[in-house]
Amino acid sequence: MDRVFNFSAGPGTLPVAVLEEARQEMLAFKDAGASVMEISHRSKQYTELAETTRQHFRDLLGIGDDWKILFLQGGASLQFYQGALNFLTPGTVGNYVVTGAWAKKALAEAKLVGQAHAAASSADSNHDHIPDPSSWDLSERASYLHITSNNTIFGTQFAGDPDPGIPMICDASSDFLSRPIDMDKYGMIYAGAQKNTGPAGVTVVLVKDSFLERIPDGLPTMLDYRTHSSKLFHTPPVFAVYVVEKVLRWIKEGGDLAAMKERNDEKAGLLYSCIDASDFYSGHARPASRSNMNVTFNLPTEELEGQFVAEAASQGLVALKGHRSVGGIRASIYNACPREGVQALASFMKEFESLKG
Amino acid sequence: MDRVFNFSAGPGTLPVAVLEEARQEMLAFKDAGASVMEISHRSKQYTELAETTRQHFRDLLGIGDDWKILFLQGGASLQFYQGALNFLTPGTVGNYVVTGAWAKKALAEAKLVGQAHAAASSADSNHDHIPDPSSWDLSERASYLHITSNNTIFGTQFAGDPDPGIPMICDASSDFLSRPIDMDKYGMIYAGAQKNTGPAGVTVVLVKDSFLERIPDGLPTMLDYRTHSSKLFHTPPVFAVYVVEKVLRWIKEGGDLAAMKERNDEKAGLLYSCIDASDFYSGHARPASRSNMNVTFNLPTEELEGQFVAEAASQGLVALKGHRSVGGIRASIYNACPREGVQALASFMKEFESLKG
Repeated sequence: MDRVFNFSAGPGTLPVAVLEEARQEMLAFKDAGASVMEISHRSKQYTELAETTRQHFRDLLGIGDDWKILFLQGGASLQFYQGALNFLTPGTVGNYVVTGAWAKKALAEAKLVGQAHAAASSADSNHDHIPDPSSWDLSERASYLHITSNNTIFGTQFAGDPDPGIPMICDASSDFLSRPIDMDKYGMIYAGAQKNTGPAGVTVVLVKDSFLERIPDGLPTMLDYRTHSSKLFHTPPVFAVYVVEKVLRWIKEGGDLAAMKERNDEKAGLLYSCIDASDFYSGHARPASRSNMNVTFNLPTEELEGQFVAEAASQGLVALKGHRSVGGIRASIYNACPREGVQALASFMKEFESLKG
Repeated sequence: MDRVFNFSAGPGTLPVAVLEEARQEMLAFKDAGASVMEISHRSKQYTELAETTRQHFRDLLGIGDDWKILFLQGGASLQFYQGALNFLTPGTVGNYVVTGAWAKKALAEAKLVGQAHAAASSADSNHDHIPDPSSWDLSERASYLHITSNNTIFGTQFAGDPDPGIPMICDASSDFLSRPIDMDKYGMIYAGAQKNTGPAGVTVVLVKDSFLERIPDGLPTMLDYRTHSSKLFHTPPVFAVYVVEKVLRWIKEGGDLAAMKERNDEKAGLLYSCIDASDFYSGHARPASRSNMNVTFNLPTEELEGQFVAEAASQGLVALKGHRSVGGIRASIYNACPREGVQALASFMKEFESLKG
């Protein structure tokens, strides 16, 4: 085994203990006499697995049976449309805080369904911050406010749960389970699993019962959340759910989400303190909007950025190239990214600056 | 390792060699220094993997670049709606051959999009056969004819590729890659992977370029096939595609699809000859419509059927209980179900009959 420290923005690194357990069970899952990939989704083994996974979510988020927990497919990208299709009901307006590329896409899909409104946007400053809630311009007849809690590309994150006075829908794909959430503020939360929650291929959708009641009849069966909230309608992405169960168990073994946030803040602090102590590195996000999941920064020249990425990779620190919208460096340090990896990166940053700065 | 012979209707059994290779690579895929679940879908490693997988499909099906090969999510159930949304264009009529529960669902979703017509149905005889093509009643202005090539629940299968004179859309979920396909007859073929192609969580969609040109503008981004046909739009179900690549390589190592059909016919023959030689077992499907993927039959009483399932399981022959629509026994013997497993089941059938018949 030759493992690197992996700063991929997603799919991202998984806990080694999770992979080792999956390896161990690959030919026979529990008493099934078959891989988890080979058993019916109506089997006792999968039914128990799905229920255990839901209970992990309830335990970590402190929610009860008035939240439905769905294991869907198609990623956040399908949710942009599906969420609007279910909740942007006639005569209402979907409100969106546009904090980056994903929020912009969510707004565009909502406009295919009905009336949708940008309540705030940080586009003018290349999404380097989260607009202050006091500046948000909510529409009349607002059905919901949609936010993107963490912006992978730009490295910004809401400091906590806003309180706009109407239920929120949140795309939490890139910081789900990285910190506590005040669930009372939300009607729905969704997350593609491939950053903090598991592998690509399952989208976790949490919907409150009272929100489900808003859904109009006549929607395509697969796109109506109610289809999936009362029973197992069709074959779910079994293996992806199976890995999610392991990831959630791993999180619980490390404590609660407050403990997770503390570890994530500390890891992010190692990198931001390098940036703040330097004129060589400049952070993209304004300090009050910094993400503790994706740390984005630039070097004085593109050439130096290219050298940084290549030399880091040669030392086993991989997938650090920033997204083209920001350029430079992006270090994605999700839950499962170990502290030692972040320390190694911080050391590399100091060394690289001392040589080239 | 304690593996059973697994007759699950889906997710179904996978080749042991595939599982062993996945186990071997679980902590480090090729030179990535990480699991295949942990790497970016834009990485060199995943890009090569996806291209290799597509080439396997082209090799096995004998198709060129005029077919797009998409790795989507949401199963066949989402395709029921999505296929109609893309191809049931205004002024045309979608035609459906209703050979079972899945075909019926496909027709129902199409009716949410536009005008859809049942060209034939076997509902009156509990779907025990495929209606003869000479009896099909195609509508005027037919845009396509939709068929379900194999009917998992009822154990029926089209004897080959029909020739209705208009392009077909085929739900091939439960017999894809089990035999050659005359691709010229189709505009689109789709298959949830979890029977013959791989694990649950990826839907393989093949669409001909000339069919893509029919798609109207203004569809939701994720539901427009063109979104996925020209580039990698969003995070695909990486691990599921990875397993599909291995399954396709395993198929190619065993020869072409004609060789696969020969093996499948022979396996199915072992069970059908037990049924035909007996008054104790009665097959559900009419002989001319029999599936070589799902063999469905009844015993004289429900009590005997229960005993059959339980005693078979105690001998390591599992997941044989039939679907409630037919009752009795269903043996799903997909590509990866080994000949020895089918032989063991045939022996068990003879033994059980000699004791209880």
